[in-house]
Amino acid sequence: MEKIAKIAGVSKAAVSFALNDKPGISQATRNQILKIAEELNYVPRRKIKKDTIVFLLVTNDHAQSLDYFQRLPFFQSIIDAFKTKSYLKGYNLSLQTVSKLDQDTFSNWQQTNIYGVVILGTFLTSDDVLLLNKVHANIVILDNPSIENSHSSVVINNKEGVRSIIHQISPKETVLYVHGLPAIPNFQERNTAFKYSAQTKDFNLTEIKMDSFSFSETTTSEQQLIINTLQNNTTIVAENDYLALKIAQIVAEKKLTHNVKALFGFDNIRTLSQSPIPIKTVSVNVSVMVDMAIDLILKEYKVPVHVTVDTNFVEGDKNEK
Amino acid sequence: MEKIAKIAGVSKAAVSFALNDKPGISQATRNQILKIAEELNYVPRRKIKKDTIVFLLVTNDHAQSLDYFQRLPFFQSIIDAFKTKSYLKGYNLSLQTVSKLDQDTFSNWQQTNIYGVVILGTFLTSDDVLLLNKVHANIVILDNPSIENSHSSVVINNKEGVRSIIHQISPKETVLYVHGLPAIPNFQERNTAFKYSAQTKDFNLTEIKMDSFSFSETTTSEQQLIINTLQNNTTIVAENDYLALKIAQIVAEKKLTHNVKALFGFDNIRTLSQSPIPIKTVSVNVSVMVDMAIDLILKEYKVPVHVTVDTNFVEGDKNEK
Repeated sequence: MEKIAKIAGVSKAAVSFALNDKPGISQATRNQILKIAEELNYVPRRKIKKDTIVFLLVTNDHAQSLDYFQRLPFFQSIIDAFKTKSYLKGYNLSLQTVSKLDQDTFSNWQQTNIYGVVILGTFLTSDDVLLLNKVHANIVILDNPSIENSHSSVVINNKEGVRSIIHQISPKETVLYVHGLPAIPNFQERNTAFKYSAQTKDFNLTEIKMDSFSFSETTTSEQQLIINTLQNNTTIVAENDYLALKIAQIVAEKKLTHNVKALFGFDNIRTLSQSPIPIKTVSVNVSVMVDMAIDLILKEYKVPVHVTVDTNFVEGDKNEK
Repeated sequence: MEKIAKIAGVSKAAVSFALNDKPGISQATRNQILKIAEELNYVPRRKIKKDTIVFLLVTNDHAQSLDYFQRLPFFQSIIDAFKTKSYLKGYNLSLQTVSKLDQDTFSNWQQTNIYGVVILGTFLTSDDVLLLNKVHANIVILDNPSIENSHSSVVINNKEGVRSIIHQISPKETVLYVHGLPAIPNFQERNTAFKYSAQTKDFNLTEIKMDSFSFSETTTSEQQLIINTLQNNTTIVAENDYLALKIAQIVAEKKLTHNVKALFGFDNIRTLSQSPIPIKTVSVNVSVMVDMAIDLILKEYKVPVHVTVDTNFVEGDKNEK
């Protein structure tokens, strides 16, 4: 506006009158100002409707592309839900990926047509969360249970999910708990909750780590670890469904299915029907998570609001309750 | 509908056709049926709009009446926010109180015009929560941080509030932590969080309980306890603002203000300007809590959703950020 005033040789107030269609200046001045504004491609801030919600996927080291996320059923269903819900609420969805969060990422969000940004936080590190805490923007962090998060957030209720699984297992049972290496906040929260809740049941508990990343192929040594640890009449609890599916495949291949009393996973990855052993799991309603995330963007509360969505218990390849 | 069919001497299908304005019967029969329906004050189920949200205050042993809640600023602001927001969203608000939750309470909610019930959970006991977990209705529990809550809930972020207060106090400081006796879940969560977070600062910590209920008058022995425990240069942290205000009054009356380095409360009760010593506190945005509670009722998600609202830090009698 300052630039227009300078070129037209009028006051900023006169430019404001012209652009906002208010009286107080001559028609000639008004026409001149509007012409200059048009030449400068000036669009008055108030006239740009905030019509776009950004859904930002932060890939970090674990993944490289949108394509990677779309091959994983949980993320694919999140992306689909975002597309549907933003359309239904009358907003455009801008799907973006970055390999690393930094200051450049945030500068793009100053565009006046952006209502807010939902960040898929599954792979965010604690450094990423600290960085985000310093950013002033309408942000909702999805799927990251960091407690010190100073933006609004929407997460699965890992603690309730773990309690729901442990509720299915009798005291004193032989339990093999399998978790993966990666520092994914959801997985860490589950692991802590499992150790805490398992104490109340006095399980005959063995715990093993699978060295390779949960989503990748198992190594021979990992397969051997499962086989060596598996006792008769064992209930296996896996930190996530990807691990549960791998364990099922290993156990079936080595013909040790008779040793498994039950196999529990976490997150319904919706490929459980492929499993050679029935997997019981807890599943979160992705549609509810995405609905809440978009609503929090649109509400623009002045205070962070944290939403935790409970899970449903799912047996075998049955549908959700 | 059965009764109408009997009186009119027609089939139930005919009654259904008439009431739902569908073809298949003669105009004479239609008129006769509608006349009988009108005489019987029959309102078809589908025509009853769910237009009412119940806001239920459970008083338990701590309080007797709606009047009691309305005299406490925090509850008064919650009730006011409910009235305003239900009106703005186009729903009636039915404000109800019960002295004790039981099966009779729930049977009233089967009325077809009730959309759902928000229960003020501040004073709910764990038995109350267990009872509520068995009730099938569209329920949101407000202001009760029980972890095993199987209905949707909206609570203040006690942990974040405590961290925010502790962040203001330097390591090694002399700190007097004062909490009350009553088993209010929010207070319990704060107390646990305080003890946990205080460790990281290595405070010279003294902890005292005030025997009387936080909202009632202090006894002479409680006053003496505060006075005896107060050292030079002490930072006082009170579990809630009612206690903080009482402590301020005791300290001022005994002319010990010079011993108090700072006085912290919790929950902005909005009477802090009456305090003879400046009280720093964390305040929750009641409007956001109520907005989320009503929204969760209206959304009718099939899975419990738990909402936690962060606090704002407030110094003296300044307004919220």
